[in-house]
Amino acid sequence: QRQQDTVANGQPIIPVSKQSLLSNIDMIANMQVAFRNEFSEGTYQRSRFTLEQFRLEIKGKVHEKVYFRFRDRYTRNVVPQSIDNISRSTDMAYLRFDPTPNWKIYAGKMSADWGGYEFDANPIDIYEYSDIVEYADNFLAGVGVGYVLPGTKHEFTLQLLNTRTASFYELYDTIPGIKEARFPFAAVANWRGSFFNGKLNTIWSYSLFREAEYEYMNYFALGNQLNLDKVKLEYDFKFSQEQLDRKGIVSGFTENIDIKTAQNVRYVSHWAKVDVRVSDKVNVFFVGMLDDAFWKKPTESSHTKLRQAWGYIPGLEVYPVKNFNLKVFGAFIGRVYKYTESARQDLGQRNTDNYRISVGVISPLVIL
Amino acid sequence: QRQQDTVANGQPIIPVSKQSLLSNIDMIANMQVAFRNEFSEGTYQRSRFTLEQFRLEIKGKVHEKVYFRFRDRYTRNVVPQSIDNISRSTDMAYLRFDPTPNWKIYAGKMSADWGGYEFDANPIDIYEYSDIVEYADNFLAGVGVGYVLPGTKHEFTLQLLNTRTASFYELYDTIPGIKEARFPFAAVANWRGSFFNGKLNTIWSYSLFREAEYEYMNYFALGNQLNLDKVKLEYDFKFSQEQLDRKGIVSGFTENIDIKTAQNVRYVSHWAKVDVRVSDKVNVFFVGMLDDAFWKKPTESSHTKLRQAWGYIPGLEVYPVKNFNLKVFGAFIGRVYKYTESARQDLGQRNTDNYRISVGVISPLVIL
Amino acid sequence: QRQQDTVANGQPIIPVSKQSLLSNIDMIANMQVAFRNEFSEGTYQRSRFTLEQFRLEIKGKVHEKVYFRFRDRYTRNVVPQSIDNISRSTDMAYLRFDPTPNWKIYAGKMSADWGGYEFDANPIDIYEYSDIVEYADNFLAGVGVGYVLPGTKHEFTLQLLNTRTASFYELYDTIPGIKEARFPFAAVANWRGSFFNGKLNTIWSYSLFREAEYEYMNYFALGNQLNLDKVKLEYDFKFSQEQLDRKGIVSGFTENIDIKTAQNVRYVSHWAKVDVRVSDKVNVFFVGMLDDAFWKKPTESSHTKLRQAWGYIPGLEVYPVKNFNLKVFGAFIGRVYKYTESARQDLGQRNTDNYRISVGVISPLVIL
Repeated sequence: QRQQDTVANGQPIIPVSKQSLLSNIDMIANMQVAFRNEFSEGTYQRSRFTLEQFRLEIKGKVHEKVYFRFRDRYTRNVVPQSIDNISRSTDMAYLRFDPTPNWKIYAGKMSADWGGYEFDANPIDIYEYSDIVEYADNFLAGVGVGYVLPGTKHEFTLQLLNTRTASFYELYDTIPGIKEARFPFAAVANWRGSFFNGKLNTIWSYSLFREAEYEYMNYFALGNQLNLDKVKLEYDFKFSQEQLDRKGIVSGFTENIDIKTAQNVRYVSHWAKVDVRVSDKVNVFFVGMLDDAFWKKPTESSHTKLRQAWGYIPGLEVYPVKNFNLKVFGAFIGRVYKYTESARQDLGQRNTDNYRISVGVISPLVIL
Repeated sequence: QRQQDTVANGQPIIPVSKQSLLSNIDMIANMQVAFRNEFSEGTYQRSRFTLEQFRLEIKGKVHEKVYFRFRDRYTRNVVPQSIDNISRSTDMAYLRFDPTPNWKIYAGKMSADWGGYEFDANPIDIYEYSDIVEYADNFLAGVGVGYVLPGTKHEFTLQLLNTRTASFYELYDTIPGIKEARFPFAAVANWRGSFFNGKLNTIWSYSLFREAEYEYMNYFALGNQLNLDKVKLEYDFKFSQEQLDRKGIVSGFTENIDIKTAQNVRYVSHWAKVDVRVSDKVNVFFVGMLDDAFWKKPTESSHTKLRQAWGYIPGLEVYPVKNFNLKVFGAFIGRVYKYTESARQDLGQRNTDNYRISVGVISPLVIL
Repeated sequence: QRQQDTVANGQPIIPVSKQSLLSNIDMIANMQVAFRNEFSEGTYQRSRFTLEQFRLEIKGKVHEKVYFRFRDRYTRNVVPQSIDNISRSTDMAYLRFDPTPNWKIYAGKMSADWGGYEFDANPIDIYEYSDIVEYADNFLAGVGVGYVLPGTKHEFTLQLLNTRTASFYELYDTIPGIKEARFPFAAVANWRGSFFNGKLNTIWSYSLFREAEYEYMNYFALGNQLNLDKVKLEYDFKFSQEQLDRKGIVSGFTENIDIKTAQNVRYVSHWAKVDVRVSDKVNVFFVGMLDDAFWKKPTESSHTKLRQAWGYIPGLEVYPVKNFNLKVFGAFIGRVYKYTESARQDLGQRNTDNYRISVGVISPLVIL
């Protein structure tokens, strides 16, 4: 899926009859509009309408064997980044060349091919991201190569990307004893598996990031999907071991004790989603997530757990228009942040709890 | 019209033959290019070329019963707003769903359905806005519903929108004794009437804004249009009673006496336009406007007039290309600001007077 | 060419069959993606992937005799400019009207019609610009008129443009004794010549800029092209005499002696490119450039040379897809900056030398 979507409910995008380019290129307005009612610690805070997502996309086949994809957000500041030179609002701007039916070559700014079904979904279909995805730089410049095992639906991808869009100093400032890397890269290996006629699918990945000289980040994301007749189950396990705190979550806690960039942190995430297709028009879902944050304090030899971040999103999606991928949703989006004794006492954190009740509309509108 | 336009002079946009989506979606470059010669207090100040307006628009029918409209400015900073999350440069990004031919449902960021023909025009056709429109937040996120009275051209619209795109504190800072509202909304009721075969038309609206707890704004806009054979007359009356000064015009005066946000202000506006279609190729027009600003001082029981803002725009528009909505214009755009005794003495204001002579080109270019 | 490009190698863009507008309008993603390996003073500094260029473009015929062109960068901050009101990221947004086959009239923001083949190329085909082009404001609002000598390929253009997009004070701050001009304009005269069946071509221009009252800039750019069977030779000579230092290069040196805006500077530039088409798929090229910067010190009567900036770019371009304008490149992009005795001693400058080895992909992808 790779953050793409379907036009009709469950149907693939039907190529509208266009001639040449017109038949092969789609322009898509990815929208999620919501009316949010926000609560904090159980108390009603405020209500407002938001465009949770608005990303314009152009993609398709521009020539025999050559493909293009571009996606740009209207919900983010347009600031060219110091490393890759392109605006942070631009998620993707890449070329794909398929030398043979089994091989694909990518170049440009692209979605890093992390595993997991949460990240793989079109962002408009996500009500709230789990911590690892929320705080990662997901769109990076670089190159990639893909290979489909002939006669199967198994696909393997390798990517070599910049590790970030901003410079070391913009992200981490100076850290005593740490030297900026000459080539701060992210290497991503991905396997998209498919078994039993698509009933069981996987998106597994391992990524190695070089954040600075001798400072690395190791990231595993193992996505698993079970597609039954009316029920879809997804479970992602993510594990990120970071010598420099790339996500910045733990650094947000250690700021209180004057450590701007925490070192030796670990994030472990469980994410699960159940979709039950009650009828052609109705989908009921539940998302549960748990993100644990660990820190190996400078004086200690093992990691200490600092925080458990829970998420729970029960919801209902209704497709009012036949054969058209537009859904009206109602969802309860809850987050609970529980800090350990250590984080509360040493780092001055306190437990928090908030939720919102959102109703709205989601559509990957194909406009051309 | 709703800020839309015609392609040919006086003709509706003729759907260019496109297949499926291509026949139903238009991409439009709304342009107003001018060479401005600017005068202040009767003295020549400077000349320059400007793109007074450049707004790219995509709109049309994306599916049976589903419509989309998007419009984005290239003359404004691209900054996602704290309330609705979408860039201030984006005027519109909404979906419309028509459950039956008489009913329409809207969701997204849209043009607030204020009455009046000035606001209803495509912005490229306006040389200078009157104060109320110029200083209002006209593009807001929310929902709407429209109903056309069967067998007539009368249309009724209700909208529920955020009252602003920025937060209370960004707009007003803190005000002693005033508490932010939990749901700062704008409720808009609009009637578009049509009589005598379209010879007499109206766009009337009433809007209620909740700016803060117990602080409201009431806005009436009554637009009237008389369409004769070669002559078009338009008159808008607007009245805005604001417990907190939303437009900020009076607050601009009271800053001199250390009142950052004025309370209990009133704006009253008259706007009139005459178009005389001399021939197929030539239109002569005159716009006149008068905006009065009032303030009820904290110690007084009634409003005091502070300023009269006059505007006068005589001009000529020529359509050089047959059956194509591109006009070359020449216009004299004058503004006179007259302050009352009270504003001059107590608030240190002084009368000003400026005008510009502009020549240029206007077109809502349909590019796809 | 005017910063446009061809789709196929050496072939003009073949109009894909589209109906009406669709057949006459192109949407183009101009891309240059590179993997840069950067060296300074001979020492390896860093490697990174960059989107050197990403400019979306829409252009074509919107009606009989009416044309439109729009191009916007995603690699530059989106900031509306104080003079022309449109975002700095927008290179072009103009209308063209052809009253007769020989005459063209332009209005809007456009590429200033400087001469020279370097500037005339699509920016994606340039690996590094010479100083004069790099530091100039190349996209300005205004009007233009073009005339093709009947029965020939000689074209003459006159443009009247704003001299800049930002205000005098934003660019120069205050300068004692210098008064801002009321109408700071740039007048550009251009001749595009073609001889011997297109074997010898020229783009020559002279431009006069009024930067302030009594402060002018004179700019000559003489581009020459020799098109042989497998070899293309281009040589541009540029000469810019600036009473106020518009490029800011010399001002960058004089800042050390507290002169913020240098006066009476001169830039002289030589740029040459050789392309050898080894085969259908392979192009070998070499670019050489030399930019001299001169300054007439306040106490002296003639100009002193301050700096020689050398550039040398050998490279190879391969077109892997038949009949498709996509090239894979490898290039060595070197710059050497040599300061004169005077600049080193009086202005504290020192020679520098850097280069990068880039490999990547270039394509003006026609996406619609």
